[in-house]
Amino acid sequence: GGEGVERLLEHRDKRGFDTSGNWCLTIFSFRGRAVPIVPLLAYYLYCLIVVSVIMVRFQHIFVECQDSYCFLDSLTTPVSIVGSALFFLLVFRTNSSYARWWEGRKVWGAIVTTARNMGRHAAVFLNDKDLALDIIRWAAAYPIILKSHLRDEKELHEVASILQGGQIQDVMAATHMPMHVMLRISADIRVIAVHKLLPEAQIYYLDANLEEFMAQLASVECIKRTPMPFAYVAHLRTFMVLWLMSLPFVLIHDLEWLILLVCAIIGYVIMGIEGIGVEIENPFGRDYNDLPLDGLVAKCTDNLRQMMTFVEEQKGPPADE
Amino acid sequence: GGEGVERLLEHRDKRGFDTSGNWCLTIFSFRGRAVPIVPLLAYYLYCLIVVSVIMVRFQHIFVECQDSYCFLDSLTTPVSIVGSALFFLLVFRTNSSYARWWEGRKVWGAIVTTARNMGRHAAVFLNDKDLALDIIRWAAAYPIILKSHLRDEKELHEVASILQGGQIQDVMAATHMPMHVMLRISADIRVIAVHKLLPEAQIYYLDANLEEFMAQLASVECIKRTPMPFAYVAHLRTFMVLWLMSLPFVLIHDLEWLILLVCAIIGYVIMGIEGIGVEIENPFGRDYNDLPLDGLVAKCTDNLRQMMTFVEEQKGPPADE
Amino acid sequence: GGEGVERLLEHRDKRGFDTSGNWCLTIFSFRGRAVPIVPLLAYYLYCLIVVSVIMVRFQHIFVECQDSYCFLDSLTTPVSIVGSALFFLLVFRTNSSYARWWEGRKVWGAIVTTARNMGRHAAVFLNDKDLALDIIRWAAAYPIILKSHLRDEKELHEVASILQGGQIQDVMAATHMPMHVMLRISADIRVIAVHKLLPEAQIYYLDANLEEFMAQLASVECIKRTPMPFAYVAHLRTFMVLWLMSLPFVLIHDLEWLILLVCAIIGYVIMGIEGIGVEIENPFGRDYNDLPLDGLVAKCTDNLRQMMTFVEEQKGPPADE
Amino acid sequence: GGEGVERLLEHRDKRGFDTSGNWCLTIFSFRGRAVPIVPLLAYYLYCLIVVSVIMVRFQHIFVECQDSYCFLDSLTTPVSIVGSALFFLLVFRTNSSYARWWEGRKVWGAIVTTARNMGRHAAVFLNDKDLALDIIRWAAAYPIILKSHLRDEKELHEVASILQGGQIQDVMAATHMPMHVMLRISADIRVIAVHKLLPEAQIYYLDANLEEFMAQLASVECIKRTPMPFAYVAHLRTFMVLWLMSLPFVLIHDLEWLILLVCAIIGYVIMGIEGIGVEIENPFGRDYNDLPLDGLVAKCTDNLRQMMTFVEEQKGPPADE
Amino acid sequence: GGEGVERLLEHRDKRGFDTSGNWCLTIFSFRGRAVPIVPLLAYYLYCLIVVSVIMVRFQHIFVECQDSYCFLDSLTTPVSIVGSALFFLLVFRTNSSYARWWEGRKVWGAIVTTARNMGRHAAVFLNDKDLALDIIRWAAAYPIILKSHLRDEKELHEVASILQGGQIQDVMAATHMPMHVMLRISADIRVIAVHKLLPEAQIYYLDANLEEFMAQLASVECIKRTPMPFAYVAHLRTFMVLWLMSLPFVLIHDLEWLILLVCAIIGYVIMGIEGIGVEIENPFGRDYNDLPLDGLVAKCTDNLRQMMTFVEEQKGPPADE
Repeated sequence: GGEGVERLLEHRDKRGFDTSGNWCLTIFSFRGRAVPIVPLLAYYLYCLIVVSVIMVRFQHIFVECQDSYCFLDSLTTPVSIVGSALFFLLVFRTNSSYARWWEGRKVWGAIVTTARNMGRHAAVFLNDKDLALDIIRWAAAYPIILKSHLRDEKELHEVASILQGGQIQDVMAATHMPMHVMLRISADIRVIAVHKLLPEAQIYYLDANLEEFMAQLASVECIKRTPMPFAYVAHLRTFMVLWLMSLPFVLIHDLEWLILLVCAIIGYVIMGIEGIGVEIENPFGRDYNDLPLDGLVAKCTDNLRQMMTFVEEQKGPPADE
Repeated sequence: GGEGVERLLEHRDKRGFDTSGNWCLTIFSFRGRAVPIVPLLAYYLYCLIVVSVIMVRFQHIFVECQDSYCFLDSLTTPVSIVGSALFFLLVFRTNSSYARWWEGRKVWGAIVTTARNMGRHAAVFLNDKDLALDIIRWAAAYPIILKSHLRDEKELHEVASILQGGQIQDVMAATHMPMHVMLRISADIRVIAVHKLLPEAQIYYLDANLEEFMAQLASVECIKRTPMPFAYVAHLRTFMVLWLMSLPFVLIHDLEWLILLVCAIIGYVIMGIEGIGVEIENPFGRDYNDLPLDGLVAKCTDNLRQMMTFVEEQKGPPADE
Repeated sequence: GGEGVERLLEHRDKRGFDTSGNWCLTIFSFRGRAVPIVPLLAYYLYCLIVVSVIMVRFQHIFVECQDSYCFLDSLTTPVSIVGSALFFLLVFRTNSSYARWWEGRKVWGAIVTTARNMGRHAAVFLNDKDLALDIIRWAAAYPIILKSHLRDEKELHEVASILQGGQIQDVMAATHMPMHVMLRISADIRVIAVHKLLPEAQIYYLDANLEEFMAQLASVECIKRTPMPFAYVAHLRTFMVLWLMSLPFVLIHDLEWLILLVCAIIGYVIMGIEGIGVEIENPFGRDYNDLPLDGLVAKCTDNLRQMMTFVEEQKGPPADE
Repeated sequence: GGEGVERLLEHRDKRGFDTSGNWCLTIFSFRGRAVPIVPLLAYYLYCLIVVSVIMVRFQHIFVECQDSYCFLDSLTTPVSIVGSALFFLLVFRTNSSYARWWEGRKVWGAIVTTARNMGRHAAVFLNDKDLALDIIRWAAAYPIILKSHLRDEKELHEVASILQGGQIQDVMAATHMPMHVMLRISADIRVIAVHKLLPEAQIYYLDANLEEFMAQLASVECIKRTPMPFAYVAHLRTFMVLWLMSLPFVLIHDLEWLILLVCAIIGYVIMGIEGIGVEIENPFGRDYNDLPLDGLVAKCTDNLRQMMTFVEEQKGPPADE
Repeated sequence: GGEGVERLLEHRDKRGFDTSGNWCLTIFSFRGRAVPIVPLLAYYLYCLIVVSVIMVRFQHIFVECQDSYCFLDSLTTPVSIVGSALFFLLVFRTNSSYARWWEGRKVWGAIVTTARNMGRHAAVFLNDKDLALDIIRWAAAYPIILKSHLRDEKELHEVASILQGGQIQDVMAATHMPMHVMLRISADIRVIAVHKLLPEAQIYYLDANLEEFMAQLASVECIKRTPMPFAYVAHLRTFMVLWLMSLPFVLIHDLEWLILLVCAIIGYVIMGIEGIGVEIENPFGRDYNDLPLDGLVAKCTDNLRQMMTFVEEQKGPPADE
């Protein structure tokens, strides 16, 4: 996911050459738009039918009316009055979705940080080589597995170079994959506690990292599994559809066939705003507008793989520094 | 509760097949709408009476007036001016309610996390099998009991497989059920402290989990027991009713009987926005738009039941690893 | 305080029977409205005078004017343009006040939680019966005394059953009552520290509760003692008054005496929005719209009194479990 | 600073007698308004010139025009359309400033709390009388010195009764006064650590207070040294000036000389909103609208002086309780 | 970066002399404006062409039309209706960007604080002179290196006086420079842990500082590497361009050539609002509107250099105080 974000970043980096930056990219891009196509086409069809019927059959009533009795024009006022209520709701909805998107990004930043911290702790303080490697491995695998879990997928080819075959099968067999990883790290911590391989304060430090994983898991599941309230989504959409459906009647007296163009543009921009809200509400997928999780996780995996090399090389005889 | 959220989730998962996703569901759904029915019907009746009286008795004054003296049309201006004030207030109110709904969701995520952490601590570090099982049991029962408490219910059939009969009766007899559970866990911690079954730092760790339960309890009770300030709710509703009641007088000159349709639509969307605010202000009930607590709690119970099995199986002779 | 909130809660609980819920309560309630009465009446008087003078003396200029020279009607445009600026400011101001109200509620939830935690710690871990009782007593008295302090009162009849006579007199004699309570708890902690009645980590735990009291005290005093900036309040109110004062001139040509009704309604709703902001800015009083502190504190006192009973009964011979 | 806030508080306390409370104070107050005087007068002069020139020389073109060619009137539409964009930006800017003001207030609440906690720790747990007094002194001096530092002043007469002469001179000679105080407290903590005058956990507790001072220092310097982004401030002001400068051309056809009054009022209210944003962006000064830091700091100093008396009196022979 | 902020600060400090403060600076400044020049010029060209074509070729249709058939004038209504939706989105976007800018500033305040704390800990508590100096050096170099990393630069001349030649080369050779610094500090902490140069609690304290560095790194990378979602940016820009492109057709009947001036001003202010959002979204660069990181980091380096002097001078023989 997150190609859109990556393309924006690419262009931002090149901005030194052209002050107008990524204007071309954003205005002429066809990919990554969040406008819902089927409803938009349905709306266009509806407008076409309404305007055609009026222009062909009822032109004497609605269009060629005299100033004293052109009642459809009066609809402009209520349509523009309630329009601002609709726009408020739409923009607030989009911003609530953006707030979730951004929260998701922050939690993922924290997940990567916690994985690195856990790895660093094991690498720096733990003298038992095998145990240290095991903890680093699980810490490295955790973000990959969580990403896969949030996408409702089970393909873990990215962990193939980190975990061993049996471990991967265990993970894939688990009902809740991230929870399985945490239980494995818990088991390692228990071994450390039982054999007193670390001073007590250190053990709880590792454990605190695990608690952070737990809290972060709750946060991302919260974002993924709880869309906006049904009544909010349904009422806003109904409101939007009612408002858009009343548009062709307004101004048909003045604009005649041109009203079709006006409706097309307004329908596109308004449905697009609602579409953004839907698109970014769940930011963990593989869409163009989702968070760039793949790159983020890959960087974290690299860091932890370095730590694994560090542990394997330097710690032949432990504590010889 | 939370069927609305679950239906949205279902449709989101299927979105690969149809880009228009859950449009049909949300627009044509009758269930889960937050529009207050009785006030809306009362408003429709009011509009019908006002418009009928004007059209039947006073048409010569209000409708057939000449351009120079059609004073009711001038009401359009004040109605549209204060309309934006009304919409601001409405949308902000709805968003404050949504903020509570979302905060409630986050606190519940944290409650489940704390329960899992408490169970994991008892399972991993505590060697006394009975005590560990007791703590895990109470930790598993806590979210169920809290859910029931927030719904002002006393039916605890979900805990039947976790707690023992006497314990359930004690819980149901308590004046404040969640507090009772916390006192029971406190008593267990006291036993651990007196018999020094865990190193001191660990004891406070368990105790910190308990403090988190306490703080989370304060948060959810805060959301449940403190609606928006009375003056805010009452003034906003009065404002809305006054504004809606002035609508039929506006534009009756131009739209005549059609004003009824306009009022019907505007009344529906505006009252609907206010209704959403009321509906999601208290997110812990069993409504269609409430938080999906049942599923959330059931998952947590499953996790903790696994830990109970783990403790029962592996810990026959403690610390033999 | 907080009757308004309690009445809303009562009606919410009954909502199963009538879908329209608390509509009657909120729309027809006379109590708990935040509209400032004297300024509103002054405004009505002003409108009456302005409209009377125009209608009686200057009708030939302002009302019976021809289309080409009815200049007062042109005021509609500037009045409606700046109206939206006014409404933005008003609604943002009201929401800033609501944010303070809600923050006050959350801090009070935390105060109650900290008091319970402190009591629970003393009850569960401290073996010295008298000292434990003393700490629980002060923890139980603290919320009551803080509530009284925030209301600038000195009537502490609620603590009569908790503290002893001399202690109450000491509290009432103190310049800063909550600080006095904290110093008393500090003294108890010092005794514990000197005589090593608790392990060191526990002492700091109790002390951390005290630090939380301190931080919460800073939060509530921050809300109480720092109203919105003067310039914000004064400018917004001046803006509102200028805007309302220009209203009677607008549309008098069209609406004539009816403009009085329009001004009355608009003045009521606009001043009411500002009034809500003022009303809920300081949420710790005894008003209809304040936080329901009395009930909250009473529940907390009950909890701590139970702990006192628990300590008195079970701890005859300490640590005999 | 903060007289405005204090006057509001005074009137709030008296509100029991008059429901209209501080209306007179806020509406008729000349002090504490944030309207920028010189730009406002410049704008008035500009309006006067524009309107005079039009009315005297070009009246035949702009004012006495017929309906078919009064093109200036058409400016009303674009001016009102972009007006709402301007008001959004203005109100958001003012609210961002208010958010900083309030954050500044909260951080100062925390600073006072940390100073009290540090003093209380030294007073309650430290047995070395001189060292305890020294730490309390520095803790008492810190808020005063920080206040002075934030105001870019060096007058420290308020600390004269707390610190000794040489200490004050050292503080005034330091390049960064608050940092100097923290280094002095650091030195005291080092002495405690070297001579083991406190158990280790306590030392870090004191040190944690110091870290909080450090973080709070970063927060307040962040607010003081980082105004809103230049582009935001400059563009908003340019936008506002362009909009206000177009006002006299709009409606001059209808309102003629009366347009001067309209421009005067609109200029006053709009520039006033921007002025509030500027005024409260930096809340640590001595202005009428700044935070009431003097009173806040004075209270804290009193508390810590009581602790000094407490230490001096009770601790003649240490630990004799 | 951050000259704009610094110029605002300069003028704020001088405000005592002139109440109009930095008005001249902000209104007449050419530098630091965020208006995108190329798109703005393209828009001006478009307007010129459209208006010329209409005025020269189609004047009989669009301009000299009679009242009954001047259909382009009717476009005013839809343009003003959807205008408010556009402005909402624009202002919310700008404020989301400002929120990131401000968050970036707060994180940088925390980074500097953590660096100071780490240095202070090493200086005050660690008796091994070389190790203390090494940690202080890395703590001093970290903000400089992070700043450089966030700007995608590798010029580290500012650290030349802090680190040694080989260390600088190592840093520049690292793939992720800030991570390299943290691993070096980790190595120092490991040495302290292995040789028990500090009590255990202190070691974790230093380590906690490192964890804070890690979390702050995640925060700033989050801000830098994740622009607003592509769909949001692209749709908003498309919406803005469509809206601006429809402007010249609106009101051309009334304003004729003057519409060019109106379009020029509106295009400038609207594109400017969007430009601010783009400009401040990534606040870590060297632009006029970026955060004043250079000054911030320089101050922190000074502080830590003082600590290095302090360690070098006073700690000849350790712990002789």
